Amino acid sequence: MVQPVREKNKITSFDIAHRAGVSQSTVSRALRGSPLVNEETRRRIQAAVEELNYKVDKNASSLRRKHSGTLALLLFEDPTADESHINPFFLSMLGSITRACAQEGYDLLVSFQQLSHDWHADYADTKKADGIILLGYGDYLAYRDKLRKLAEQGTRSVRWGAVLPDQPDVSIGCDNHAGGRMVTEHLLAQGCRRIAFLGEASTHYPEFFARYLGYAEALEQAGLAADQALQADAESTERSGYEAVETLLARGERFDAVFAASDLIAIGALQALNARGLQVPRDVALAGFDDIPMASFVNPPLTTVLQDTQQAGRLLVDALLRLIRGEVVESAMLPVTLKVRRSSLWKQER
Amino acid sequence: MVQPVREKNKITSFDIAHRAGVSQSTVSRALRGSPLVNEETRRRIQAAVEELNYKVDKNASSLRRKHSGTLALLLFEDPTADESHINPFFLSMLGSITRACAQEGYDLLVSFQQLSHDWHADYADTKKADGIILLGYGDYLAYRDKLRKLAEQGTRSVRWGAVLPDQPDVSIGCDNHAGGRMVTEHLLAQGCRRIAFLGEASTHYPEFFARYLGYAEALEQAGLAADQALQADAESTERSGYEAVETLLARGERFDAVFAASDLIAIGALQALNARGLQVPRDVALAGFDDIPMASFVNPPLTTVLQDTQQAGRLLVDALLRLIRGEVVESAMLPVTLKVRRSSLWKQER
Repeated sequence: MVQPVREKNKITSFDIAHRAGVSQSTVSRALRGSPLVNEETRRRIQAAVEELNYKVDKNASSLRRKHSGTLALLLFEDPTADESHINPFFLSMLGSITRACAQEGYDLLVSFQQLSHDWHADYADTKKADGIILLGYGDYLAYRDKLRKLAEQGTRSVRWGAVLPDQPDVSIGCDNHAGGRMVTEHLLAQGCRRIAFLGEASTHYPEFFARYLGYAEALEQAGLAADQALQADAESTERSGYEAVETLLARGERFDAVFAASDLIAIGALQALNARGLQVPRDVALAGFDDIPMASFVNPPLTTVLQDTQQAGRLLVDALLRLIRGEVVESAMLPVTLKVRRSSLWKQER
Repeated sequence: MVQPVREKNKITSFDIAHRAGVSQSTVSRALRGSPLVNEETRRRIQAAVEELNYKVDKNASSLRRKHSGTLALLLFEDPTADESHINPFFLSMLGSITRACAQEGYDLLVSFQQLSHDWHADYADTKKADGIILLGYGDYLAYRDKLRKLAEQGTRSVRWGAVLPDQPDVSIGCDNHAGGRMVTEHLLAQGCRRIAFLGEASTHYPEFFARYLGYAEALEQAGLAADQALQADAESTERSGYEAVETLLARGERFDAVFAASDLIAIGALQALNARGLQVPRDVALAGFDDIPMASFVNPPLTTVLQDTQQAGRLLVDALLRLIRGEVVESAMLPVTLKVRRSSLWKQER
């Protein structure tokens, strides 16, 4: 481990570690009050702190006042929905949040939850975690009350999701509106005019809704109107994307492009289009959202909007730690990037 | 949620949930003694259990004797090694273990650890988790003593890794030896004769070593001997794979194939070969191990050995839960599958 440059003669946690005969990370855990440090080690570290007259900052008072040293991640997805896989976008977020926690010296308690359950009461009452990160798709209006109760109970929480004017909590999300606009402007530039939108488009699902509003805005700026007949509800699964395309086709609507509100929906849509003999992008241009790893290796590779999950994980953990330290934290939106791949290059194939 | 078919008149946890006015999963948590259920809810569930004369099985005694309802996952990887990403194989395992825990109603506490640290003492002393899963590459001989202490302390643990005759713990691993043999037989069938092996080949790294022994056995059966000059150490990173190829080339050794002990090593090797003007598979056939998602979309797509991470996650969680219930659990090896892709099709390109 590389030692940081230090002020001359300043006692650091490395000196404490050396004196106590433990690793620096154990000192760091002990100073944070982690219960992972056993009592004997804790006493040895406390003794070294006193001998060396180490300037203990306010956090170090947790040598006596125990913290959990743990952040909780509540993943809202039905674990029985698909027997084998986590939604790849959430898996990527899980990895980046785990890593960001580790870099801050925290453990991460991962718990699958269903939005309908009484998780807000469960987590407010326990000392398992110093704060919680909420991650997952779901009906926002149905769980906003629980978020409010969580805030009232004084539970520190940060949510991955849309930034909304009336939200009771702090959220970090990506700029879904800009992403929806970018995709739609790109499809319009390809010459597409009848662009379908697959995904819930209501305030119940604010992330998808913001993507929809970006889509509608781009259409309007091009002198077109968003056509209700070209919108089909879908949740973020391949099956749902497949069914949404079948719904559109059953309506007898003609469309030259599909903007799916997530990559999983797009991949399901691709399968449904192929099953009906429609080729992407020759017959229908296609774009998704998220840039999950699969997006670049479906055939044709999928145009999509990159949400930077590494940055997102770091920002969520950072925001939560600042809340825990009692700082004021503002909700924030991350920029997104359009990734153009072959699935949307309609003009070139005609 | 689908209710299970039940015996006539038999009281189930769904009846308890209905009576207590909570969800079935909350009843299940309470019966398991999870601290996530607050005291008032726990009392209500206890009252319903008594009113309905619910046959409480032995686990339900934890209504009084608290369990954590949590399994810990210790990930041995340096979180500072690469600022942004978890090794993709471990990320996939993290996903499948998280999901398997959820399906069993457990939370998962994820903690990055370094092998050199005193994690064995930390985790033995706390009541944070009912048992631990150990996951990660590292020098086995350097941490075997810690595993032994863990076992002596009575900590329930299961390790992802090689099954070894002298191991102090229970492990679940894949059949690395068979995987190594399959890859090598495939490369031999392509006509390759000078097959390099990239990866540590010693008892310090038993998974890589088993892959090496499978490789050596296949060579021997083909009347060839494993040539020390064609082996180069590498840990499971792209950088290490890149450097291993440079080591081989600096030795002036000729080789017509490379078997990398992991996909990350293989991808690094591919970059190094390309940088030296060597084409895969025309000049050098290449195969890896793991079948990480990236393997199928590098160019050329990588021949590799699939370790079924979904099954592995389920088996690890299942083995640990059986240990926690006091059952005798045997170490086990999962079968592997050779995935032939273009990177190894040497014969066809010549």
